[in-house]
Amino acid sequence: MQPQVIETTFHVRYAETDLMGIVHHSVYLVYFEEGRSELSRQGGAAISELERDGYSLAVSDVEARYLLPARYDQRITVRAWVEQIRSRAITLAYEVVDAETGQKLVTGKSKHICLNREGEVSRIPKQWFEAIQKLAAS
Amino acid sequence: MQPQVIETTFHVRYAETDLMGIVHHSVYLVYFEEGRSELSRQGGAAISELERDGYSLAVSDVEARYLLPARYDQRITVRAWVEQIRSRAITLAYEVVDAETGQKLVTGKSKHICLNREGEVSRIPKQWFEAIQKLAAS
Amino acid sequence: MQPQVIETTFHVRYAETDLMGIVHHSVYLVYFEEGRSELSRQGGAAISELERDGYSLAVSDVEARYLLPARYDQRITVRAWVEQIRSRAITLAYEVVDAETGQKLVTGKSKHICLNREGEVSRIPKQWFEAIQKLAAS
Amino acid sequence: MQPQVIETTFHVRYAETDLMGIVHHSVYLVYFEEGRSELSRQGGAAISELERDGYSLAVSDVEARYLLPARYDQRITVRAWVEQIRSRAITLAYEVVDAETGQKLVTGKSKHICLNREGEVSRIPKQWFEAIQKLAAS
Repeated sequence: MQPQVIETTFHVRYAETDLMGIVHHSVYLVYFEEGRSELSRQGGAAISELERDGYSLAVSDVEARYLLPARYDQRITVRAWVEQIRSRAITLAYEVVDAETGQKLVTGKSKHICLNREGEVSRIPKQWFEAIQKLAAS
Repeated sequence: MQPQVIETTFHVRYAETDLMGIVHHSVYLVYFEEGRSELSRQGGAAISELERDGYSLAVSDVEARYLLPARYDQRITVRAWVEQIRSRAITLAYEVVDAETGQKLVTGKSKHICLNREGEVSRIPKQWFEAIQKLAAS
Repeated sequence: MQPQVIETTFHVRYAETDLMGIVHHSVYLVYFEEGRSELSRQGGAAISELERDGYSLAVSDVEARYLLPARYDQRITVRAWVEQIRSRAITLAYEVVDAETGQKLVTGKSKHICLNREGEVSRIPKQWFEAIQKLAAS
Repeated sequence: MQPQVIETTFHVRYAETDLMGIVHHSVYLVYFEEGRSELSRQGGAAISELERDGYSLAVSDVEARYLLPARYDQRITVRAWVEQIRSRAITLAYEVVDAETGQKLVTGKSKHICLNREGEVSRIPKQWFEAIQKLAAS
């Protein structure tokens, strides 16, 4: 069983470049987050709703590998999928690719733990868990 | 009577530059905010304390004039002062200058209104108001 | 004659919010820039091409008025139009509105001067000038 | 032999927080970069000088582990040290700690490869290499 890969495409903003003329490496964590947001939306389990219920998915670990630079106005696609989901934690994986050629630019992962309103580690709410689990093994 | 000018000095971060090789123009609003934070700290009326009491200073207007670019690692000084304070609103003015030469890089202003916990326009709390008023005409 | 209004729609990113729970005011300058990029693309005069030819449109002035906050995941539309174009300078105006209701959130302007590769004030290249002029009075 | 740990202390900016009320996780990559800049400065081998000579240290890998959140106005210290330096690559390690208590907030690493003006992988220039090597095993 393969996880479902959710794609979201946009172009690089001017403000996201640095003096090297390429996207600053910290920006890809924001791109990953965009992929994560889109994945949760398409899975019928938007992160914004989870937060309205008082929960949040705190980032506990992140890693990124930079293969090729992206430049201003380049159209890029973020591919995101669930690598693992457990009762209190979730791991997502990402690829940022050129939207036209599909060439891989950056890959990465993020681990998250579920926190409740009090900031305590907590079970992921059932409805959200099940929606995401479907994406994990569709 | 002259307002007290509060200075804070730091250097330009790599991530703050764009592909033109200079600080992206949106970053100066963050620099202004740094000047504002320092002004409130030195005035004995830290914005962080105001927020702990449930108030915030929402930005209602901002303007900036860009005279000269700043570059990575350049040491810059933000000069901030109170231009006007009223019961529910405050206007601050800024200059970003080269820390060594004093050469003016960017000037600007920001207007703020005081909001309470419910997001309603509200009187600036007395203690904070008086501390800032001292800076306005010292 | 009315200038042509170019629209671009996207949603608010998580990273763009601040501890007030709303989009940080500096981010709207990036949204304006997105509107500007889209305007130049649709006008057949992409800023990225101008830069490939060695020119840039340096920001000389910017102003923003904040009417209502935007929040994470909110879909917003940036409306951008040319207010004035001259041989060496251009003024653009912006409105950021809620994409669904059309409610006005933030308005603003930016002034730009054309710089050549040497960083000197320069005439806007003819082809780019004419493309933008069409948008200014269509 | 222990590597020399270089510290740089500053406070969290308002714009760096997100709607969770804490520093957005992508910002720590900028904090790491600040640590890296300071390390290179104190080692007598500023990254800005390396770049003036036409070289850059492209980020090839980055990882971060988030232990505790940081908040607006909190004073934090970035501790940076050289983990490994080779002819064409360098690995740095980081800790972001509370400046008062020393409590660990975030840890991480970044790997870099040296690129020349043409964007090709290249030997790290001798002078820079030797300055950094001293920090690696002092």
